[in-house]
Amino acid sequence: MLDFSCDYKNGAHPAVLSHLVETNGEITDTYGFDKYSKSAKEKIKKACKSEEADVFFIAGGTQTNMTVISSCLQSYEGVICATTGHINCHEAGAVEYTGVKVLALPHKDGRISAEQIERYMSDFNGNPSRDHMVFPAMVYISFPTEYGTIYTKKELCDIRNVCLKYGLKLFIDGARLGYGLMCGECDLDLPFIAEVCDVFYIGGTKVGALCGEAVVFPKGAPAHFITMIKQRGAMLAKSRVVGVQFDALFTDGLYFEAARNAIIRAEELKKAFSDKGYGFFIDSPTNQQFILLDEKALRRLTGKVGFEIWEKPDGNTTVVRFATSWSTTKEEIEELSRLL
Amino acid sequence: MLDFSCDYKNGAHPAVLSHLVETNGEITDTYGFDKYSKSAKEKIKKACKSEEADVFFIAGGTQTNMTVISSCLQSYEGVICATTGHINCHEAGAVEYTGVKVLALPHKDGRISAEQIERYMSDFNGNPSRDHMVFPAMVYISFPTEYGTIYTKKELCDIRNVCLKYGLKLFIDGARLGYGLMCGECDLDLPFIAEVCDVFYIGGTKVGALCGEAVVFPKGAPAHFITMIKQRGAMLAKSRVVGVQFDALFTDGLYFEAARNAIIRAEELKKAFSDKGYGFFIDSPTNQQFILLDEKALRRLTGKVGFEIWEKPDGNTTVVRFATSWSTTKEEIEELSRLL
Amino acid sequence: MLDFSCDYKNGAHPAVLSHLVETNGEITDTYGFDKYSKSAKEKIKKACKSEEADVFFIAGGTQTNMTVISSCLQSYEGVICATTGHINCHEAGAVEYTGVKVLALPHKDGRISAEQIERYMSDFNGNPSRDHMVFPAMVYISFPTEYGTIYTKKELCDIRNVCLKYGLKLFIDGARLGYGLMCGECDLDLPFIAEVCDVFYIGGTKVGALCGEAVVFPKGAPAHFITMIKQRGAMLAKSRVVGVQFDALFTDGLYFEAARNAIIRAEELKKAFSDKGYGFFIDSPTNQQFILLDEKALRRLTGKVGFEIWEKPDGNTTVVRFATSWSTTKEEIEELSRLL
Amino acid sequence: MLDFSCDYKNGAHPAVLSHLVETNGEITDTYGFDKYSKSAKEKIKKACKSEEADVFFIAGGTQTNMTVISSCLQSYEGVICATTGHINCHEAGAVEYTGVKVLALPHKDGRISAEQIERYMSDFNGNPSRDHMVFPAMVYISFPTEYGTIYTKKELCDIRNVCLKYGLKLFIDGARLGYGLMCGECDLDLPFIAEVCDVFYIGGTKVGALCGEAVVFPKGAPAHFITMIKQRGAMLAKSRVVGVQFDALFTDGLYFEAARNAIIRAEELKKAFSDKGYGFFIDSPTNQQFILLDEKALRRLTGKVGFEIWEKPDGNTTVVRFATSWSTTKEEIEELSRLL
Repeated sequence: MLDFSCDYKNGAHPAVLSHLVETNGEITDTYGFDKYSKSAKEKIKKACKSEEADVFFIAGGTQTNMTVISSCLQSYEGVICATTGHINCHEAGAVEYTGVKVLALPHKDGRISAEQIERYMSDFNGNPSRDHMVFPAMVYISFPTEYGTIYTKKELCDIRNVCLKYGLKLFIDGARLGYGLMCGECDLDLPFIAEVCDVFYIGGTKVGALCGEAVVFPKGAPAHFITMIKQRGAMLAKSRVVGVQFDALFTDGLYFEAARNAIIRAEELKKAFSDKGYGFFIDSPTNQQFILLDEKALRRLTGKVGFEIWEKPDGNTTVVRFATSWSTTKEEIEELSRLL
Repeated sequence: MLDFSCDYKNGAHPAVLSHLVETNGEITDTYGFDKYSKSAKEKIKKACKSEEADVFFIAGGTQTNMTVISSCLQSYEGVICATTGHINCHEAGAVEYTGVKVLALPHKDGRISAEQIERYMSDFNGNPSRDHMVFPAMVYISFPTEYGTIYTKKELCDIRNVCLKYGLKLFIDGARLGYGLMCGECDLDLPFIAEVCDVFYIGGTKVGALCGEAVVFPKGAPAHFITMIKQRGAMLAKSRVVGVQFDALFTDGLYFEAARNAIIRAEELKKAFSDKGYGFFIDSPTNQQFILLDEKALRRLTGKVGFEIWEKPDGNTTVVRFATSWSTTKEEIEELSRLL
Repeated sequence: MLDFSCDYKNGAHPAVLSHLVETNGEITDTYGFDKYSKSAKEKIKKACKSEEADVFFIAGGTQTNMTVISSCLQSYEGVICATTGHINCHEAGAVEYTGVKVLALPHKDGRISAEQIERYMSDFNGNPSRDHMVFPAMVYISFPTEYGTIYTKKELCDIRNVCLKYGLKLFIDGARLGYGLMCGECDLDLPFIAEVCDVFYIGGTKVGALCGEAVVFPKGAPAHFITMIKQRGAMLAKSRVVGVQFDALFTDGLYFEAARNAIIRAEELKKAFSDKGYGFFIDSPTNQQFILLDEKALRRLTGKVGFEIWEKPDGNTTVVRFATSWSTTKEEIEELSRLL
Repeated sequence: MLDFSCDYKNGAHPAVLSHLVETNGEITDTYGFDKYSKSAKEKIKKACKSEEADVFFIAGGTQTNMTVISSCLQSYEGVICATTGHINCHEAGAVEYTGVKVLALPHKDGRISAEQIERYMSDFNGNPSRDHMVFPAMVYISFPTEYGTIYTKKELCDIRNVCLKYGLKLFIDGARLGYGLMCGECDLDLPFIAEVCDVFYIGGTKVGALCGEAVVFPKGAPAHFITMIKQRGAMLAKSRVVGVQFDALFTDGLYFEAARNAIIRAEELKKAFSDKGYGFFIDSPTNQQFILLDEKALRRLTGKVGFEIWEKPDGNTTVVRFATSWSTTKEEIEELSRLL
């Protein structure tokens, strides 16, 4: 059955798999010091045009978020994010489990704005009770967001400026970073991300790898970050498993090329729905598309193609998500099109 | 260069890798519900002769320890272990990071005994201040231990009985479980482990996999263990990466066969050292061998073969660890022998 | 200078102080087992008409909230409260520090409703991703709320019913419980509170004591709650300091009588403001009054009488809080009246 | 009945109580900013000859230990202490509850030495796996220790030097500080303590107060320590309750005078036991005396005088603790003497 329900049901990109196969017989170092992790880190730093960056590999996204946030903040500090931010909704309270309060701001299409952060900080600083409150110390945004939307260069610069003004760190959750960077609307690139952030991660699990995320601290990592990775259970002994995969993904632009495929397919998918008169919940330029289905359409498609139920704005309408990925083929879109 | 420094510098067992390759093109479910994870779980339950068991896959060992321990205990409870226990020494305080105190007892060759636990519990229960103390609620042992030693059937039964008497859960860290079960001295098997424990894990990373440990709760898992895995950042989205590997490891006894190779090689390695007059720090029947080197021998071998410096009991003697694995060859042992 | 800025700037009620003085020379037991703590617990159970209740004394409010919440919940569970709930706003993230996520719902005059909780739970249970979310397990409400409002008997019964339906514990923060129970609008009493809740606390610090809150579990406390109090640093060695105070407060209805004075004074204060044409931000029946001041009035009163700046709904208006207490006198209200 | 079982069964020193009574009618600020807290802080700074010190009041000892330790350390850091240290034994895992590992060293009469710390640090720094271990960052010692012993000036200087060498903070738990400083063997004073430590606390609960400990950071407190106090639930709203007590204790040397009484009485108590031929488990110069009782003596004294069972080194001998305090009278010692 056709399946667009999410972008991590496939295996590894063939070139990633090949690299695992061809390096399998070697003896390598461990805990991030194997030669493939080292090579991948160099390639990522080059792709970010950030020679002083520190790069680390972690197996999954929630783990990366909780490790980065809890390692960068003091106990009296908290992290600002959109109410729809992944850390606020779908990580089972992993950030709070480390003792950190998530300070959620209302979102617009998954985004928060520099103005909101400015207002929040200005209110906080003006509050005579602020010593009895959690000190905001980091801004977390997802790029693309949980609704598939992205931020423009201008929006990120504005957020960065508010962060600088108030001493906030900026952390970008890039679980789907490739799909954001490769979309048609995007006016920025990896070096810009590295410039604007204190820390971000390049998602591998959803963009060609079997597992693994690359955390990048363009201005350097917190002291003893390695020990904090270990302490949160996030260190892989046989680190090559992620290192080899990122080494392949950052060879000859594979990461971007793989991501681009998802965008091309998403555009075709959008057109297919649009041509058949379906409406969209949100105008997403990336690989996640949010379609409005009435009861009849919902019944007709269920069981014929995989998608994810997102939310039910009213009794008759259901918002569903269709996700493409690096592995989605033109033929799959055509087959979907015939079902609509 | 020959390298015996640790048992996780190699890749995956060829049969494990093949299974990853041959299943790579498929679309599978996520978060532990993919068909390979399901299949692997069934095979593990069968190997444990424990149909009611709950099985989960987690990427690494420290993560498994902290997730299991913190999920099984209440906040006022702690975990008993040997001073040399991995959770007490080499996990950067991961267990304490979850708020749980490790209650360390003196070890003998890496082991603790039923008598020690009995005495500790009896003292605790007799202590009028016990409400101001951490309540012991779990016993953690490693099998094999950090010194390569194992427990006998009788020793484990005795420990189990003390646990039952005092309401303690028994957790066996099986990072190297295969190497313990396959060694000549071992008088027990997987079904026995499943019977004697409340929870244990079957280490994959060190026995044939690229990553992954299989946590087994023979009498059932704590409620909402899945959410607690997620909350500790330990859930893999593309869970097949571990599921496929364990599916291969538990097909046709591969896990045990792979482990047996390490034991055969370790016996040869022991003989090689012994024949050349080297002494042993501990009489280990498993894949980790602890050799005594004087200054001269240390200098001679350094740079010619990889091993790990373990401890320095006195100025002139160094204890070093040589580890074999499923991938160690007869030729490597012979080459080592020539160097001694 | 007149000071209405908060209700904990005074000392102890004279009868409370006398009891401390007259018992000072005695030798008593410790850690909650002194005779005054025991006597006070019996009196509180009687006042609650709840013989099976477990009662504990803790020095302060934030400590009580974090101890109760973290002791009642499992790590995968969270606590529902109003966005304006004290635990969400003004406790420096103490609840999150224990690893628990606060699930904040929009408030109305400081209150949340049974309908909101019902909707939240029904959405949660219907969410296919709920295993990746924090499980709601407790409802926290303040009585009176942070805006001085209270809940009716009917409203609390409705909330209780939703809690029963979904297996949620109900926790009432009674930092100002006396001021709620004694206000004219209140249609419920302490035995009703004990019936409707799983746990609540009777605030002493703000109602006659120097320090101390009485936590009541009408249906029994969690196992080893004493050890969890100790573990959170919340156990007083010389426990009589709080025991003696509550023993006095629950002798001859002192707690209620002391609280009633604050309500009488608050009514007079309301009338004084009202007579002079001031507006109210909220219609509060308890000891906290929220007055609207324009710029001129704000300037005129500043420096002549103490009050607290609450919020600034717009450029020209400031919401300020005036709080009465058990120690506020008729003369103070008259003096205030002359200033308006 | 005579009771020497512990030093916190009495009330407040009469002069402390008087100060509470005479200030009770006043209106004061809150959260540590009341005038009595301010005054007490100045007096303590003067007594410490440490004008740049930051002083905070916290209600109890366990709370102080967990708040100080968790506020001073980063998540990857741990605290060195004696196996018998209060934080390691009798605080229900409060330090671990904040995520910090306690690194326990063998004690000698309750003490650890500079040499032990030096060896531990040197081993740690030489350990190639140290990134997988908890980084020692603080030394915790009790003065007097849990066995009533003290450290000499020379011993503390040596410990300080090791701390400076390895970047460790030095924290002295002074729950019974007065009883240490006033004992005959003591060759140091409060200004020396302030000089040698990064942080220490002056115990009030056991030396004249109803509750309260004064935390002193002679070289300045961590940033936002107030918020971290609040976050750990350790902030008293009506802070005067502790402020007034320490204001009295540090007026005209009351703290030291009160402590001296306990020492005089302890000397008399020692002589009484010694004269009757009893043996001592430890030679303690402070207010806690550890007496060896055989079965007969134990039976004879039980029920006639209160003492605490400490430990049972063998079947026939019991170590019991007799504690004097600021309130112990000469007559009580004489009465005890007649019972022996």
